[in-house]
Amino acid sequence: MPSTMRAAVLVAPKQLAIQERPVPRPGPGQVLVRIEAVGICGSDVHYYEHGRIGDFVVRAPMVLGHEPGGTVVALGPGARRHRPGQLVSLEPGIPCGTCPQCRRGRYNLCPDVSFYATPPVDGALCEYVAVDENFAHPLPEGLTAETAALLEPLSVGVWASRKGRVAPGSRVLVTGAGPIGLIAAQTARAFGATEVIVTDISPQRLALASELGATATVNPHDTPLSSLPSAGFAPDVLLECSGVPAVIDEAIRTLGRAGRAVLVGMGGDTVPLPLARVQNFEIEVTGTFRYANTWPTAIALAASGEVALDRLISHRYALEDAEQGLTAAARDRTTIKPLVRPQPH
Amino acid sequence: MPSTMRAAVLVAPKQLAIQERPVPRPGPGQVLVRIEAVGICGSDVHYYEHGRIGDFVVRAPMVLGHEPGGTVVALGPGARRHRPGQLVSLEPGIPCGTCPQCRRGRYNLCPDVSFYATPPVDGALCEYVAVDENFAHPLPEGLTAETAALLEPLSVGVWASRKGRVAPGSRVLVTGAGPIGLIAAQTARAFGATEVIVTDISPQRLALASELGATATVNPHDTPLSSLPSAGFAPDVLLECSGVPAVIDEAIRTLGRAGRAVLVGMGGDTVPLPLARVQNFEIEVTGTFRYANTWPTAIALAASGEVALDRLISHRYALEDAEQGLTAAARDRTTIKPLVRPQPH
Amino acid sequence: MPSTMRAAVLVAPKQLAIQERPVPRPGPGQVLVRIEAVGICGSDVHYYEHGRIGDFVVRAPMVLGHEPGGTVVALGPGARRHRPGQLVSLEPGIPCGTCPQCRRGRYNLCPDVSFYATPPVDGALCEYVAVDENFAHPLPEGLTAETAALLEPLSVGVWASRKGRVAPGSRVLVTGAGPIGLIAAQTARAFGATEVIVTDISPQRLALASELGATATVNPHDTPLSSLPSAGFAPDVLLECSGVPAVIDEAIRTLGRAGRAVLVGMGGDTVPLPLARVQNFEIEVTGTFRYANTWPTAIALAASGEVALDRLISHRYALEDAEQGLTAAARDRTTIKPLVRPQPH
Amino acid sequence: MPSTMRAAVLVAPKQLAIQERPVPRPGPGQVLVRIEAVGICGSDVHYYEHGRIGDFVVRAPMVLGHEPGGTVVALGPGARRHRPGQLVSLEPGIPCGTCPQCRRGRYNLCPDVSFYATPPVDGALCEYVAVDENFAHPLPEGLTAETAALLEPLSVGVWASRKGRVAPGSRVLVTGAGPIGLIAAQTARAFGATEVIVTDISPQRLALASELGATATVNPHDTPLSSLPSAGFAPDVLLECSGVPAVIDEAIRTLGRAGRAVLVGMGGDTVPLPLARVQNFEIEVTGTFRYANTWPTAIALAASGEVALDRLISHRYALEDAEQGLTAAARDRTTIKPLVRPQPH
Repeated sequence: MPSTMRAAVLVAPKQLAIQERPVPRPGPGQVLVRIEAVGICGSDVHYYEHGRIGDFVVRAPMVLGHEPGGTVVALGPGARRHRPGQLVSLEPGIPCGTCPQCRRGRYNLCPDVSFYATPPVDGALCEYVAVDENFAHPLPEGLTAETAALLEPLSVGVWASRKGRVAPGSRVLVTGAGPIGLIAAQTARAFGATEVIVTDISPQRLALASELGATATVNPHDTPLSSLPSAGFAPDVLLECSGVPAVIDEAIRTLGRAGRAVLVGMGGDTVPLPLARVQNFEIEVTGTFRYANTWPTAIALAASGEVALDRLISHRYALEDAEQGLTAAARDRTTIKPLVRPQPH
Repeated sequence: MPSTMRAAVLVAPKQLAIQERPVPRPGPGQVLVRIEAVGICGSDVHYYEHGRIGDFVVRAPMVLGHEPGGTVVALGPGARRHRPGQLVSLEPGIPCGTCPQCRRGRYNLCPDVSFYATPPVDGALCEYVAVDENFAHPLPEGLTAETAALLEPLSVGVWASRKGRVAPGSRVLVTGAGPIGLIAAQTARAFGATEVIVTDISPQRLALASELGATATVNPHDTPLSSLPSAGFAPDVLLECSGVPAVIDEAIRTLGRAGRAVLVGMGGDTVPLPLARVQNFEIEVTGTFRYANTWPTAIALAASGEVALDRLISHRYALEDAEQGLTAAARDRTTIKPLVRPQPH
Repeated sequence: MPSTMRAAVLVAPKQLAIQERPVPRPGPGQVLVRIEAVGICGSDVHYYEHGRIGDFVVRAPMVLGHEPGGTVVALGPGARRHRPGQLVSLEPGIPCGTCPQCRRGRYNLCPDVSFYATPPVDGALCEYVAVDENFAHPLPEGLTAETAALLEPLSVGVWASRKGRVAPGSRVLVTGAGPIGLIAAQTARAFGATEVIVTDISPQRLALASELGATATVNPHDTPLSSLPSAGFAPDVLLECSGVPAVIDEAIRTLGRAGRAVLVGMGGDTVPLPLARVQNFEIEVTGTFRYANTWPTAIALAASGEVALDRLISHRYALEDAEQGLTAAARDRTTIKPLVRPQPH
Repeated sequence: MPSTMRAAVLVAPKQLAIQERPVPRPGPGQVLVRIEAVGICGSDVHYYEHGRIGDFVVRAPMVLGHEPGGTVVALGPGARRHRPGQLVSLEPGIPCGTCPQCRRGRYNLCPDVSFYATPPVDGALCEYVAVDENFAHPLPEGLTAETAALLEPLSVGVWASRKGRVAPGSRVLVTGAGPIGLIAAQTARAFGATEVIVTDISPQRLALASELGATATVNPHDTPLSSLPSAGFAPDVLLECSGVPAVIDEAIRTLGRAGRAVLVGMGGDTVPLPLARVQNFEIEVTGTFRYANTWPTAIALAASGEVALDRLISHRYALEDAEQGLTAAARDRTTIKPLVRPQPH
């Protein structure tokens, strides 16, 4: 095992440095994982560009990256769940385990969670991390480190479908066909939805949505969302992945009676809520914050092939070129999911 | 049985006429009920003042009133649930019973419901109505026709507490101490809530809330709602009964993690939704539309004395004076619940 | 329209007569359906053999059959949901729509339900039936009358998976690979289960289970169920379709913590319940009685091809030969699902 | 702080020794609690009499007691939730916090839980224990150490009512009026049940049940349970606290449609399950194993006075006389709940 490793460190807004850092030693109950693939997420990009997300401010250099997959290479004292060589997907947040939220199974709402690449906690865009063995989920044969990395966004989709109670026969509207929207649409299908309409203003993204399982696509430039119900599509569930206030308002109004609106896309402090419709149709509106207990399901869906994660990878970078991954979406609007492969070739 | 009866008919905005109408004959499976008490609701007042509520427009003379209690006096062919003399509370909406909403037990969302005093359906502010025996709920010994009348607003409270999943130990915020807010607060207590804070700008109403079981009251003129969480009160459930957009926004922000906001008060087409808070705390927001399957619970709560309905009655009128009941709140801001007693003395 | 039709009438145990009966006239809100396919169910066979099922005794000649599919040929007064020519699947039970069970959405538990081929109600093993339009579910293009007939047993499977809360990633044990077990296994897959083990003592049935989507099969003659957990398979959900008391006991013991056992197979008045295990693992045990609100889901699953119903049809008979359908399973143990096609060629 | 303390140690079946042991030192995140009251539970008695409960065998001397209340007297490093002098009720099981059961909020099913007085873990029938601060629940002003001790059996009642989904207006049957049955009946009332029938063969216990809130009592020697439904009482929920197989069978058969049976009383490996009734009425049957997330609710119910715990205390003993507490029930059948007060006078 080397004593040092490279890490992609945000030192200031728009300044990413590749730094040499000590390889961590796995503590009690931890495993050391060699990181082989890390997805770049919108929040990484946001920290890179602005040095903050809302109240979370990067005040000291911080390693980015919270979608890591890799291989167990060493066990800390007392660790017993894995053997070296096991491919694992890392759940990026370690909750406290004893607060009221954790005890109720809502550990995503733990106020004391330690989450990768959320200041001041370092992320996983580096060569090695040490992690609690219980948050390093083993993958079955046949899956890859890249899939392992993408189980994090898949978890977002699983969580959204659970919150929306997507079930066999559900009719689902997915607004926004970025990486999360594309995954949410696939997840909804895997949850049994038999109609999944995806909306976006990008024809390329809509084409990809169709390829990945959307049963129909709608470009609001051509077809206003408000026309969907009269055209026979009043969805049971809305998975809102655009974060655009006007879309949120309009999309909630398409829902049928007792519909559920799950607001995944971040869209600022306040958005308009169509109160009269929410009341008359008793629509449930909720937001998602990360996820809880999703990895087992995400692994099962990836292993069974019901969701196609690899198809989302639009770019691959070496660790030295991680900054390109962070700027890819700004440079190229067809970017879906850039991936960094931290290990040297 | 007389052949005609008096009815309070809205003939134009702000014009109520006492008209002579035929006593209805109970059809198959129906019972004839002598109406002894009818609560006046805000929607009656709204129809009286404006001749419409949103898309529901009074285009022909319509009997008002949808909170009736009375006594079964005759049975239609095949009716078998009641005997004459039985005190009953009438559920004011008769759903179709076979549409997808009805079949799923959400009969309040039945698009074909026939609901008292919702155009073009006549209400119950009259001496007799004929009604499906299954929607004439028998009351146990010891309850009165006035209580029977008030089971309708109590149902609104039961429905709100169910939607909010109020449970033993819950901490509940009730915004607005009108009749519905006062009932919602009592209902929340009956559902086991051990802390119920009621807010209103009227000191009289807050005093009444305290008397009826609120564990604390807050006048937002003195104490902004936003200060509640830092004062140690981050509620599990919000029962919003004011309909004021700014209150809705502010009150949702007080909720603790995984809190539920139930929007009961009508407040126009659109209100602001604090999206970031809804997401970060995974708050569930929903609205209520009438109620379903609430009468058995409402009867049980009234019979056990866990809610004190009579205390809400602020005025009583003869049928001839029903118009005074409709204008009471406008004339006297301390009005809580006016009641009309349609039978002649 | 002819004035008479043929019907398969149980006149005494083991005596089926083909009788001429009047074609019914559709009443208000009803449609007249030409029956084109009727599945033979174990309960039909049981009535045929014994003249009773428990307390339900056939005291007068009764038409059998409660799994009908066909085509709307005429509308009764006020019927508006269908046009003649529409392929429909008939839900065989018409609940009262207003009792407490119906109002709560549990209409399968309606004590006043009128259910095909349950004494004294005639079934649908005949050429025409008149039925409430709301219980004649329209099928999309591309489905057949045979599929329409098999939506009834599919509904049993949908209901079982709902009761067991089968979800993406679930591990499911199905005991018994008769028609219901085979459908339950497929349905569990459609609900997202990624491991579905089916058990039976018939190698042919296990082979068919594998073909239809079981991820593994177990013959208890070779592998006792009790060995499954130590072999790494402690299911989340048991769908018990054998009705064999010893299997029920043993299968419940395989469940993991917080597992759910859904007892579908009928197995007599009393069976052993492993109390200590049910307590220590907090296992939920429930039974199913028919189904509620399943047709929309069943139609969606059949239309999307996620369940393969046609593969279950082992025999087809003309109406004149319906008795052969009732005795097929007794004569030939490889029988899965016999179907009767009532229309003359 | 003294360096040693007394503890009541089970050294062999029917042999309890008062031994001198070191006062524990609170570790990181722990608090040291001076134990002031400990309830004696049936499982303590069972270990005392038999040295084992099922697979749990006392192989080395073990301190008994898992219902402790007391006062925080010292804080371990990093403990921050309490101040010395705080009255606390101890939750007797410390789960691992990271296994699949814990993460889902079902920490009572954690296979790695460390639970007081369950071999080989020492209990709390002693003068001091050190415990994770998060499992030492602070009590509000006005409650006593004796109440703190009895929050453990109250938690059993809260858990049973939650599992049975007892709600306002529920009709509940409680079979068995020992300490748990008496608490379950009170808890059901606190959850809003308006009819609670308690059964037992002891007239004294039934009298106490009536005093504590049962709306009716039944002695099966006089009135067979099977006669309840025809007498108009078909409960929604059964809280089975007797553990008697014949009672379990008979009581389940009284439930109404969609009823829930919660099996709390331990009654051996296997009991009869009325399958046909469970299916025809779709009854849910489940068992309880300890409890999860109940202390906040239990504290709220005790603080509001909705349950009267002190009334259950039938005997009080000094630590030296703890053995009398373990034999009280065998000597005196009117024993309800013996309590040990470990501190010297």
